[in-house]
Amino acid sequence: MNNPAIRFQTDAEAGQARAGTLLTRRGEIETPVFMPVGTAGSVKGIRFEELEHSDLDARIILGNTYHLWLRPGIETIRSCGGLHRFIGWDRALLTDSGGFQVWSLGALRKISEEGTEFRSHVDGSLQFLSPEVSMEVQAALGSDIVMVFDECAPGNAAPEEARQSMELTARWARRSRERFDSLQQEEADSGKKTAERLSGTQALFGIIQGAANLELRRESLQRTLETGFDGYAIGGLSVGEEKQVMWDVVGEIAPLMPPDRPRYLMGVGTPEDLLEAVTHGVDMFDCVLPTRNGRTGQAFTSRGRLNIKNAQWAKDTRPLDESCPCSVCARHSRAYLRHLYLTGEMLASILLTHHNLAFFLDTMRGVRQSIRSGDFPKFRREFTERLGTNGE
Amino acid sequence: MNNPAIRFQTDAEAGQARAGTLLTRRGEIETPVFMPVGTAGSVKGIRFEELEHSDLDARIILGNTYHLWLRPGIETIRSCGGLHRFIGWDRALLTDSGGFQVWSLGALRKISEEGTEFRSHVDGSLQFLSPEVSMEVQAALGSDIVMVFDECAPGNAAPEEARQSMELTARWARRSRERFDSLQQEEADSGKKTAERLSGTQALFGIIQGAANLELRRESLQRTLETGFDGYAIGGLSVGEEKQVMWDVVGEIAPLMPPDRPRYLMGVGTPEDLLEAVTHGVDMFDCVLPTRNGRTGQAFTSRGRLNIKNAQWAKDTRPLDESCPCSVCARHSRAYLRHLYLTGEMLASILLTHHNLAFFLDTMRGVRQSIRSGDFPKFRREFTERLGTNGE
Repeated sequence: MNNPAIRFQTDAEAGQARAGTLLTRRGEIETPVFMPVGTAGSVKGIRFEELEHSDLDARIILGNTYHLWLRPGIETIRSCGGLHRFIGWDRALLTDSGGFQVWSLGALRKISEEGTEFRSHVDGSLQFLSPEVSMEVQAALGSDIVMVFDECAPGNAAPEEARQSMELTARWARRSRERFDSLQQEEADSGKKTAERLSGTQALFGIIQGAANLELRRESLQRTLETGFDGYAIGGLSVGEEKQVMWDVVGEIAPLMPPDRPRYLMGVGTPEDLLEAVTHGVDMFDCVLPTRNGRTGQAFTSRGRLNIKNAQWAKDTRPLDESCPCSVCARHSRAYLRHLYLTGEMLASILLTHHNLAFFLDTMRGVRQSIRSGDFPKFRREFTERLGTNGE
Repeated sequence: MNNPAIRFQTDAEAGQARAGTLLTRRGEIETPVFMPVGTAGSVKGIRFEELEHSDLDARIILGNTYHLWLRPGIETIRSCGGLHRFIGWDRALLTDSGGFQVWSLGALRKISEEGTEFRSHVDGSLQFLSPEVSMEVQAALGSDIVMVFDECAPGNAAPEEARQSMELTARWARRSRERFDSLQQEEADSGKKTAERLSGTQALFGIIQGAANLELRRESLQRTLETGFDGYAIGGLSVGEEKQVMWDVVGEIAPLMPPDRPRYLMGVGTPEDLLEAVTHGVDMFDCVLPTRNGRTGQAFTSRGRLNIKNAQWAKDTRPLDESCPCSVCARHSRAYLRHLYLTGEMLASILLTHHNLAFFLDTMRGVRQSIRSGDFPKFRREFTERLGTNGE
């Protein structure tokens, strides 16, 4: 259970906002942490130099196993020395298992005990993903944090269907664990120096499922704990359910999760969501909102969201966010960003994405500092009060 | 004739490769210089921080009057403090006159003595551009170098048609000069401090036309000189004619251009073209090739062009150009760039554009250094020999 690939330090009680540190061979990661999403080996529109720059200083990014597996494929990434070397990123990487992407294909996939059969969105070819395949792919990617292959119940699942899905996830978690362990052992036995190994120094996180059913969620937590992982994630939320459902699940489950392991709320969320989840003791987040919304012209600011398309910004020489220290706000006006967006200039996406990521990552820096200084409730109250005052 | 907005220093003979310095209130610009094209107020895919970074260190960029006039419009740019402030760029800006863009509209425009009537590509509205309007728009933009409003003869123009076009250009040049001068005077009389003025400190360049006809070209040069400008451009080339036509015109006209004024070859060209034109004493260039081709997956390298889509790069861990000191070549492989391009990631365009601009600007740095040290012929010979050896 004590994996040298990752250690987690925190001194907080369960179910409270907590600051901590993830120690990885790729550097220290202060928590609570937000992970920008690098779907296909690129955080869309952002150079790695910008991710490393003090504006953003992203310590860990997420890669999607499903996308990378289908294209460029594992053979290419392996021959280029693993995902870090392939994309040119030396800091930490977390990869999801592909389970959620395959689940999202809906009618295009068929789930069995063995795994999931589906058609590739790239070339229509028939593909098969299972716990074992997912672990093998993630070993080849060489990500620092590997996620178990899970199944996500539909939001409207009947109780029996939700139970079956949760139980399948539990069995897949065990198979993921076994294949992961043997892959780590193979790498350790290979005699390769640590720096050359693609895996052998990876951490594995389990995922708690169970839809909106708290009893199933508790059982899923129990069965995930029995298998045992380096960290624990809450999955299957932020997939279209009512917000309150998410908070009921997080509020029930987070305090029951082991305090000495990182807690990861997958696919969440807005800045307000991050702060709410932090109060329940969640440590890690990922979400496409800052990048995706940046590309569709929406800025997240300390005074709320701002739609750059709005005519009211046409001659507005103020930055997106007057309180923001990022390089976009230091240099460019709303008027210019609106012009770029309406003209279809790529630079609109680049700059809005940069600002949005800066805002998310800066907010999390503020969260960590306020937790450490005991001022998190005040920080959160003031943060929340400022939102919605941008006059849009 | 001696405009304080711009001074040019060079000690070379006419018709020879020459190094010089353009002194502007936005800083010194060493020549020969390549100007990245910032069509609509953005060099596509590139942040201004990158343009300023030592990788690129672009001292002057080009803006398109036609595009900026139609969108966001002069009212917006003026109320945001001029083009420099609107886009967030403190270095020098050259704007074209809109003449070439309107000419490119073909059947959508109607040319008269007074000016050109055309339909906007943005909203279909009827617009009218003339020497006077172009000067007013460029005064509002506040560009450091303003181009006269000219007319470009079609490549297949009959002799009489080409003559009429050249003569119209000459009359428009005189009208451009007059309106420009009165606008500069109005600004000077306005009592505004220099820093607040949009114009009043601008330079005006004339354009030599005359299609492929050397007699017309000489006459156009003569008439342009009679009006008198701060610099002189050769226009109407690189518009689909045979390469030899361009070199015949440049070889004939460049040596006849005043040696104490900058010479600008508009819309040219490939790296080989730049070096050829430099041998004739050309000082300034602009071209969309590095940016446009970057977006379509073509890299310019010291060993020739490289199509990033080619399957042969699928697992190639080498940079685009092993001799290139740019940040893209320092960090990313052909395999990764190919993956980004095939996946449709915006980052492919960003990185290829950055490398291409770095290559063009770095080549021009090499040109300037070699001219100063007397080694330009050797530099050019070695540069040309290396091209075509990338094994594609």
